[in-house]
Amino acid sequence: MVEKKKINVGLIGYKFMGKAHSHAYRDLPFYFENSAVPVLKTVAGRNPEGVKKASEHYGFQGYTTNWKNLLEDEEIDLIDIVTPNNTHVEMTIAAARAGKHILCEKPLAMTTAEAYRILETVKENNVVHMICHNYRYTPAVQMAKKLIEEGKLGKIYHIRAHYLQDWIMDPKIPLVWRLKKEVTGYGAHGDIGAHIIDLARFLIGEFSEVTGMMQTFIKERPISTDSDGLSGSTASDKTGQVDVDDATAFLAKFSNGAFGVFEATRFAGGNRNGNRFEINGEKGSIRWDMENMNNLEVYFDNDPKGLQGFRTINCTEEVHPFAGAYWPPGHIIGYEHTFINLLKTLIDGISEGIIPTPNFEDGLLNQAVLEAVEKSAEKGTWISIKEVLEQAKAESCKHLSN
Amino acid sequence: MVEKKKINVGLIGYKFMGKAHSHAYRDLPFYFENSAVPVLKTVAGRNPEGVKKASEHYGFQGYTTNWKNLLEDEEIDLIDIVTPNNTHVEMTIAAARAGKHILCEKPLAMTTAEAYRILETVKENNVVHMICHNYRYTPAVQMAKKLIEEGKLGKIYHIRAHYLQDWIMDPKIPLVWRLKKEVTGYGAHGDIGAHIIDLARFLIGEFSEVTGMMQTFIKERPISTDSDGLSGSTASDKTGQVDVDDATAFLAKFSNGAFGVFEATRFAGGNRNGNRFEINGEKGSIRWDMENMNNLEVYFDNDPKGLQGFRTINCTEEVHPFAGAYWPPGHIIGYEHTFINLLKTLIDGISEGIIPTPNFEDGLLNQAVLEAVEKSAEKGTWISIKEVLEQAKAESCKHLSN
Amino acid sequence: MVEKKKINVGLIGYKFMGKAHSHAYRDLPFYFENSAVPVLKTVAGRNPEGVKKASEHYGFQGYTTNWKNLLEDEEIDLIDIVTPNNTHVEMTIAAARAGKHILCEKPLAMTTAEAYRILETVKENNVVHMICHNYRYTPAVQMAKKLIEEGKLGKIYHIRAHYLQDWIMDPKIPLVWRLKKEVTGYGAHGDIGAHIIDLARFLIGEFSEVTGMMQTFIKERPISTDSDGLSGSTASDKTGQVDVDDATAFLAKFSNGAFGVFEATRFAGGNRNGNRFEINGEKGSIRWDMENMNNLEVYFDNDPKGLQGFRTINCTEEVHPFAGAYWPPGHIIGYEHTFINLLKTLIDGISEGIIPTPNFEDGLLNQAVLEAVEKSAEKGTWISIKEVLEQAKAESCKHLSN
Amino acid sequence: MVEKKKINVGLIGYKFMGKAHSHAYRDLPFYFENSAVPVLKTVAGRNPEGVKKASEHYGFQGYTTNWKNLLEDEEIDLIDIVTPNNTHVEMTIAAARAGKHILCEKPLAMTTAEAYRILETVKENNVVHMICHNYRYTPAVQMAKKLIEEGKLGKIYHIRAHYLQDWIMDPKIPLVWRLKKEVTGYGAHGDIGAHIIDLARFLIGEFSEVTGMMQTFIKERPISTDSDGLSGSTASDKTGQVDVDDATAFLAKFSNGAFGVFEATRFAGGNRNGNRFEINGEKGSIRWDMENMNNLEVYFDNDPKGLQGFRTINCTEEVHPFAGAYWPPGHIIGYEHTFINLLKTLIDGISEGIIPTPNFEDGLLNQAVLEAVEKSAEKGTWISIKEVLEQAKAESCKHLSN
Repeated sequence: MVEKKKINVGLIGYKFMGKAHSHAYRDLPFYFENSAVPVLKTVAGRNPEGVKKASEHYGFQGYTTNWKNLLEDEEIDLIDIVTPNNTHVEMTIAAARAGKHILCEKPLAMTTAEAYRILETVKENNVVHMICHNYRYTPAVQMAKKLIEEGKLGKIYHIRAHYLQDWIMDPKIPLVWRLKKEVTGYGAHGDIGAHIIDLARFLIGEFSEVTGMMQTFIKERPISTDSDGLSGSTASDKTGQVDVDDATAFLAKFSNGAFGVFEATRFAGGNRNGNRFEINGEKGSIRWDMENMNNLEVYFDNDPKGLQGFRTINCTEEVHPFAGAYWPPGHIIGYEHTFINLLKTLIDGISEGIIPTPNFEDGLLNQAVLEAVEKSAEKGTWISIKEVLEQAKAESCKHLSN
Repeated sequence: MVEKKKINVGLIGYKFMGKAHSHAYRDLPFYFENSAVPVLKTVAGRNPEGVKKASEHYGFQGYTTNWKNLLEDEEIDLIDIVTPNNTHVEMTIAAARAGKHILCEKPLAMTTAEAYRILETVKENNVVHMICHNYRYTPAVQMAKKLIEEGKLGKIYHIRAHYLQDWIMDPKIPLVWRLKKEVTGYGAHGDIGAHIIDLARFLIGEFSEVTGMMQTFIKERPISTDSDGLSGSTASDKTGQVDVDDATAFLAKFSNGAFGVFEATRFAGGNRNGNRFEINGEKGSIRWDMENMNNLEVYFDNDPKGLQGFRTINCTEEVHPFAGAYWPPGHIIGYEHTFINLLKTLIDGISEGIIPTPNFEDGLLNQAVLEAVEKSAEKGTWISIKEVLEQAKAESCKHLSN
Repeated sequence: MVEKKKINVGLIGYKFMGKAHSHAYRDLPFYFENSAVPVLKTVAGRNPEGVKKASEHYGFQGYTTNWKNLLEDEEIDLIDIVTPNNTHVEMTIAAARAGKHILCEKPLAMTTAEAYRILETVKENNVVHMICHNYRYTPAVQMAKKLIEEGKLGKIYHIRAHYLQDWIMDPKIPLVWRLKKEVTGYGAHGDIGAHIIDLARFLIGEFSEVTGMMQTFIKERPISTDSDGLSGSTASDKTGQVDVDDATAFLAKFSNGAFGVFEATRFAGGNRNGNRFEINGEKGSIRWDMENMNNLEVYFDNDPKGLQGFRTINCTEEVHPFAGAYWPPGHIIGYEHTFINLLKTLIDGISEGIIPTPNFEDGLLNQAVLEAVEKSAEKGTWISIKEVLEQAKAESCKHLSN
Repeated sequence: MVEKKKINVGLIGYKFMGKAHSHAYRDLPFYFENSAVPVLKTVAGRNPEGVKKASEHYGFQGYTTNWKNLLEDEEIDLIDIVTPNNTHVEMTIAAARAGKHILCEKPLAMTTAEAYRILETVKENNVVHMICHNYRYTPAVQMAKKLIEEGKLGKIYHIRAHYLQDWIMDPKIPLVWRLKKEVTGYGAHGDIGAHIIDLARFLIGEFSEVTGMMQTFIKERPISTDSDGLSGSTASDKTGQVDVDDATAFLAKFSNGAFGVFEATRFAGGNRNGNRFEINGEKGSIRWDMENMNNLEVYFDNDPKGLQGFRTINCTEEVHPFAGAYWPPGHIIGYEHTFINLLKTLIDGISEGIIPTPNFEDGLLNQAVLEAVEKSAEKGTWISIKEVLEQAKAESCKHLSN
């Protein structure tokens, strides 16, 4: 057996997404015969005890409490950033300048201007970059993409996409970092809304303009005992202001004339992880629901009269993208496999010098939609994505030239 | 057996809704022991052959080609208007002035100002009035209302409602009246969007402000051979402009702080009659889908941990509103029964001198939402329902004073 | 308008099935343009008050407390029998001898021998006869039949059919007639099992042999206060033995090589009226569920690889059998419409001198399966349907020759 | 970090189940903090190239073409047998005699007598043993077990269980080992029927007697080019006889009075891996479907009137057995996790000296049901499980004493 090329990974952060990414790196070579193999080299985190434990548990060769050490480690090829959103700009730019390939969690940045600078920097430094919109990598979603690209749905008229969760409905849940604007940027909008924006961009195309509304249903919450306000923190006696959205909805017009309705909320009781969409085109429709992620529902208008109806396709067959790597038809896969499929694509990209999608350009365009929605909610008018991008560019150039 | 009071019905129009209403009048006494019984007295329509045939088929005692004859017939108690929307204002006002009780199809009028005048007139003339938002009268929807009123869902955070159809996706479908602005007012928005607006008002409360978008995907269609452009017409060689919306979507804020997303479209392939909503409250959620109308899905947050999930309640039991009149549990009812339940309420109302809901006040408030969405789509801003109502009142008073 | 031929109906019995049949006669001419029109002439029942009330409520011209009066009434064309099963043999035979056409509720008789005699008698008297297996007349089931007949499923391998109810799970429910062997013959087996046997015969073909098991979970119940033990009776203090099955299941081999699994039970909590089947053939499969009766799920093996899956066909379109008479696509029908479709076929049959299906021959063959299952449960072996039929014939001839 | 105890694994076989087991050993320490850690020591297989490749791909330290080498390797603690069924008896007995703990794929043996001897041998040798009925280890199934044990369903009346597949419907699929009696013992019956028998035993209790039928729909198939007739083989020109069942169905009576209907088939088109059951008890019901394996549907009879219905519980929360090890609520797991959960239990068992379930006693009892069904299909009568077990014991003792 020829020894495969190794790609050494330095991971920054180790909580929920750290677990998901680490697992996927470990599992990848079992399922896919990539030309290269990821190696869990070093994990970075501020809490010495926590990062040590994570390092052992996830199977890293070592750990550090200073993420900058990863950049200085010449053996590390890929920096994987799963820290809160306010850290992304510094880390991605430093990593790019250190010549490292980068995987970054979504959203890419706190503002479109930041995202613009990040993209400029990775381009200048010729590194491979990817943003972790893992839901794109569900076989059923990839199958949807294939059908749309092949023209099976014809011209697209509609997308309606909802990402519904309910984990913070209890007012006693403390002010964790995902509820603090200075750390997270947006609430439901950036955390889960960003995913359905990405799915729409992937499947339909670019957003042209949007108008939205944002709402915070529970405006005050207990401050968490943990100074970082990390997930899993317990509540203290004091309370603080929630300054991000609990729910955001928006209308969208797409460049190709399609018509979109989007909603992200953490206040939809009974929806644990209800990431769902329906797309309607001239010749057919598709429906997908992450809670039943292996299935794609497809309607074809050219099915014979009387035999028309949505088909439930269990996307677990050889012919379905990525599915052949796993189990026989009908033996379903789960959430974690979306990360494996994404990493398969990233590792191939690094190995072959190809920048995969979604990458930081997607991150930028996604961020522009997030920001346009926020602006529209403030102003009560439609906001053009193009304008947001141009302003970001101007602002970013000013920043870069300073 | 004491002879029951009879309520003589004069029906104007006899197509799809004429069939639905006529059937429901006939079927009503079989299922419900009302204090009064409707009698199919006279049906009016312009086409002599058509109205004669309808009269015989539906079981009316007679017919006329001049709807005004119904108003002059002293025996007629109730005028039922199922004609195109541009006729509603004249007919309802004339009927009210003739002292007749009125059932009118939705939307009530072409404009909010018209609706305002209609409402003023029925009030002045002390007649019973009702607007035919039949979907309210599905047992599962009534059950939803009951749960919300009892506080079982707590404070309401969200409604997302979609009414998806696909009957005009084929560009060869001609310009029937439902596609002509001067006859119908709105396209999908007024025809099916009005129904989900009504469901939201019924279940959640009043709309405060809205912002929307409207789209016509197929802008030109064959002119229909039938001069009226009635449904079922065939296409001619000439084409004409479609001047109503194929699809409309809007965001809404409710007076009680709830947050709504609405979409009505005739371009959602595979959705024959997809009238669906989900409501999320502090303590629970409900889902409903007209294509599976007997079921209500309900989630309660106070179910024990580990046993939480949406329940599928088949609302066919004695305990479910209206359901006891029909068949044993699990023996489902269909579309037509929504009309029977609505008429049961109307006939009781007439018999007992009570104005049921939804009535023309609901018609007015619904119309104001329709118009606010239209205005917001034109201006690109949020429109307040209150302002639309005030303008309509002002305009209507001017009209009345002229 | 040419006056249509009238078919005068005499109904014996007026409870649940009396309501369902009466309604369907009334509704039939509204939906279908038959060559003849049923007229509700006379209803017969033992309880003077009850039958009078039913007569008025259902809209009969008159009533009688002696069913034999119906046979003497020369104007009556059709006798409709909805009384408990132990009365069918006397009534059907008397009706046939009086030259009346007959509709009889299922099961046709108490024994196969009885059924044989009934069939012989109707044949001798040249009357039109039909047995009320209404579920055959669901548009989705008719569509299933069409697909099978057209060979769309190829050779049939499997049917699994379940009829699950739960209305007698509470041990306090009294010994109503449906729980008394001398009145009803079988419990769940004859009441609901007979329906899935009929669906299997309709869709797959004839049963060859069966082996089954029968169970009575609650063996003692309160005697009902009503001497007839009719449904809706209240419980007295005394208890009596339940001598029919609460649940029956059986395996079946069909003449064409198909392989069947059947189960009828009244002890399947949460299944109010769960009449469901799946059929698998060489080229495709179908699934149907009465609680969602408008839908047919269909799988075609020759759909392209990667696009295979069960389609949910909402059988509410013109192209679906019987569906065109009702509402536009997606506007669903319910339980009662199965009776309307069946009566449409019966009234056409009488009018045109054609014996429709399912008729008393179907009743006989169904009864033979019921009896074969019972015998197999007693003996613990497979029982051939042919043998049961031959024994019944022999026994019946003996009876006839006496 | 204290070094954890290591449990060295020797795996015999490396195809479908080899992949599933190997993956689960690798993944186990990532998700669960067991007291011991499995190490992939050696994999055995007859084909030198195949086993070498599997060894590298799955991450074993070494490989061998002679499985007996594993028994001689003192470092190996656990022998995992995933070879065709006709090899189980020799391998398990040899492994037990070598003092190795054993995991064996189902069914345990070719006959009940074999299974009896295997059980006797592992008992004599005091090794830990487990049979790989992985579906028991789905969180939703474990939750079902918990509900039943807590009495939430009350006395159990019914189970109906189906395992429906369709992978051999094409007559061109060759005679792979799973279709040869001498290698596999049974067809669908032993391969997938064994799983639903296990689920029934796990959830309901012991089978008392059964009657069944077995069918081979396609009796001749191309001989596979691979001499072993392994899965994935291609077809040759010659054909051979299929001597196992394509489908088996049976009725069952349980010791506790419950009533079961079972069906396993490979000819149910559109059902890729349709492992499904419904259980009805005095107080409630549950439904489960492997193709949507994270959900458990539960009905409680003591829910308030009007609010009764099946709940869809997504068993992905901390409170659901095994689910807490994985992802946040609503982030589903898949097929492979059933093996991880099973191995977690096995490794704990070995580490703590506890024999987990299902073990070889379950294997024996399962085999007895399989054999009783086969006998009943031959004889056409009911067969008692107890008698099959007694005969097997007698036969086995004779064998042992020889």
